[in-house]
Amino acid sequence: MMPSDMSVSTMSVTHDRGVALLEFCGGHKANPFSQDRMRELRCTLTELDASDDVRAVVLYGGENRWFAVGGDFNELNSFTGGPEVTALMAEIGEVFIAAISMTTPLIAAIDGWAIGFGLELALTSDYRVASSTARLKMPEFKLGIACTFGGYMLEHVVGRSTMQSMLFSTDTWDAHRALSAGLVHEVVPADRLRNHARDIAGRVATFNPVPVQETKPFLNAAYLNGLHEVVEVSKRAHVASFSAGTAQKNMRAVLGKKV
Amino acid sequence: MMPSDMSVSTMSVTHDRGVALLEFCGGHKANPFSQDRMRELRCTLTELDASDDVRAVVLYGGENRWFAVGGDFNELNSFTGGPEVTALMAEIGEVFIAAISMTTPLIAAIDGWAIGFGLELALTSDYRVASSTARLKMPEFKLGIACTFGGYMLEHVVGRSTMQSMLFSTDTWDAHRALSAGLVHEVVPADRLRNHARDIAGRVATFNPVPVQETKPFLNAAYLNGLHEVVEVSKRAHVASFSAGTAQKNMRAVLGKKV
Amino acid sequence: MMPSDMSVSTMSVTHDRGVALLEFCGGHKANPFSQDRMRELRCTLTELDASDDVRAVVLYGGENRWFAVGGDFNELNSFTGGPEVTALMAEIGEVFIAAISMTTPLIAAIDGWAIGFGLELALTSDYRVASSTARLKMPEFKLGIACTFGGYMLEHVVGRSTMQSMLFSTDTWDAHRALSAGLVHEVVPADRLRNHARDIAGRVATFNPVPVQETKPFLNAAYLNGLHEVVEVSKRAHVASFSAGTAQKNMRAVLGKKV
Repeated sequence: MMPSDMSVSTMSVTHDRGVALLEFCGGHKANPFSQDRMRELRCTLTELDASDDVRAVVLYGGENRWFAVGGDFNELNSFTGGPEVTALMAEIGEVFIAAISMTTPLIAAIDGWAIGFGLELALTSDYRVASSTARLKMPEFKLGIACTFGGYMLEHVVGRSTMQSMLFSTDTWDAHRALSAGLVHEVVPADRLRNHARDIAGRVATFNPVPVQETKPFLNAAYLNGLHEVVEVSKRAHVASFSAGTAQKNMRAVLGKKV
Repeated sequence: MMPSDMSVSTMSVTHDRGVALLEFCGGHKANPFSQDRMRELRCTLTELDASDDVRAVVLYGGENRWFAVGGDFNELNSFTGGPEVTALMAEIGEVFIAAISMTTPLIAAIDGWAIGFGLELALTSDYRVASSTARLKMPEFKLGIACTFGGYMLEHVVGRSTMQSMLFSTDTWDAHRALSAGLVHEVVPADRLRNHARDIAGRVATFNPVPVQETKPFLNAAYLNGLHEVVEVSKRAHVASFSAGTAQKNMRAVLGKKV
Repeated sequence: MMPSDMSVSTMSVTHDRGVALLEFCGGHKANPFSQDRMRELRCTLTELDASDDVRAVVLYGGENRWFAVGGDFNELNSFTGGPEVTALMAEIGEVFIAAISMTTPLIAAIDGWAIGFGLELALTSDYRVASSTARLKMPEFKLGIACTFGGYMLEHVVGRSTMQSMLFSTDTWDAHRALSAGLVHEVVPADRLRNHARDIAGRVATFNPVPVQETKPFLNAAYLNGLHEVVEVSKRAHVASFSAGTAQKNMRAVLGKKV
């Protein structure tokens, strides 16, 4: 069972020479995302972006933890397809919109699994480095869930063909396959991931922020505009999917199998 | 010479546990597409998509046949650039629009050649598996034909760079090069292609159809919208090209060479 | 120091069986682009495109020269963020718009470095062949310059992931990495580059021009439309960046290091 107690802070931030390292902590090492945790992430990213002292942000799942899995199945498996679904979709959209709206460069450091929401979160970043043991997956269709956010974000970042492959095969992609498809930009040994991501961010933090902040919003504008539509599409699609009931049954089966 | 008698049915459909296997048959093993055959394909796909019992469709060229070549040269080589050209472009557009409009997942199984229209047809699918002996080609410019459908569909599915490569080199792409460019998602030995495609479709057929049907139309919307414009552009481009006359001469040369 | 005297012609054109070979010459072998040289290139491309005798154009940096580096640092390092910046952005936009507007196929032959503006220029072409010693780079952020043209053109031609990699790492890409990302379509030994590019153009020149000219503008329309917006965005972004002053300091450092 994954614990759902997220009343304590679920992430920590450390600062070093313009680099903010945002690390997930607490709860299960798989980093499931309850709505409370999504809100905390959204507010933290927005605060970091507003700070003049922060020139680059690293998003990291934490030592010996996964980058992030999807939503918190303990929360989701009681969903029935009502307003709780539209509220969740709005919150997911807000997290991605906050991340993609950042003018400060965002670097994702991926160890362990990045699944569903976790993979989507990584796709909001400007640069992605993975450990050689990282694994990426978009299992929505197999679980009985719509994949509107994931489909849109994969197609926008790595193209339609890879999006089709991940959605319809629901295969697990290891780090090297992810690298060749552009899902990640670099692969390093797991024990070097954290430091390497900080080195990348450290180099980015030396860039004069003016040209970066003049360029990044322009390059993210189409991606961001599309997301607003995806939120509305996702509300309809997920209400229909959760009403069908298959997802909740599959989630309970997954929870039962987890240690 | 390729026989043009398509009055008999040119495709067969077999059903097995939610999977419809649509197989081309009759006529030349290259599977050239006359307008009659295009209409038959369009109607068949639309019917299969409307059936609640069909959860996945496999498009297959048939045992020891090619996936599909372009239009039927016996039909095209008498074209003069008049209304017969705009009628053909409208029909080609309708076939692709019917395929991309399907809410049911479509899997293409490619053996032998997929050329021009044949490759474009494969690019309407959600998932493409090729035999290791498959070959893909977009020879329009060399033949003296506009490549508006092909250019648009290649760029949308596998990106601008691969589109440029195929159109301006008119090279033949073998299965492994096609795999690395995302033109196909998997490559298997030729003798396993049909069964493997059915296995993939069988797995897709186990997905709850609600989330798939809520997701796929959204992910296909931009592709589909663009196609409507491509039809109109194609009418003008092909009228001009067929009026130039080079294409018909080249087609007659190809027909003369064929066994 | 790179000489800035560009009053003599900075490019030559030779014609052979429908192929126009446009070769840069004069000045520093790195081929920096002053605004005068940009204007000359723009006018030359427009004239070649207007000629019925020209069926394909090869853009080549010249024997033992680089394809092209960015703007001319001797010109840029005195910029202060005023109207001289908006004038330069307008001129850069005009060059790219002229190249992408050509109905005649454009083949880029890349030896040595293609950096910043040089790489962007290569990305206006329909087909890119590189020597095995070619190197590509988008160092804007490291130099303290906005990267609006480069970011837009990379994303449009090779996708968002490769764009992110080049902009945020500012790494040098060798020919083989460039090939696997679609930045170039072929790689040949340096001593064969010129002839090979002419062979490719020679084959393209045999295509009937009507279907090519009916297809290419359609496939370039979205790319071209986007560029008009990029010009305006670039004016604002570069005025802000040059006002920040870091770029000029970095450029003077680069000039001091150059032989």
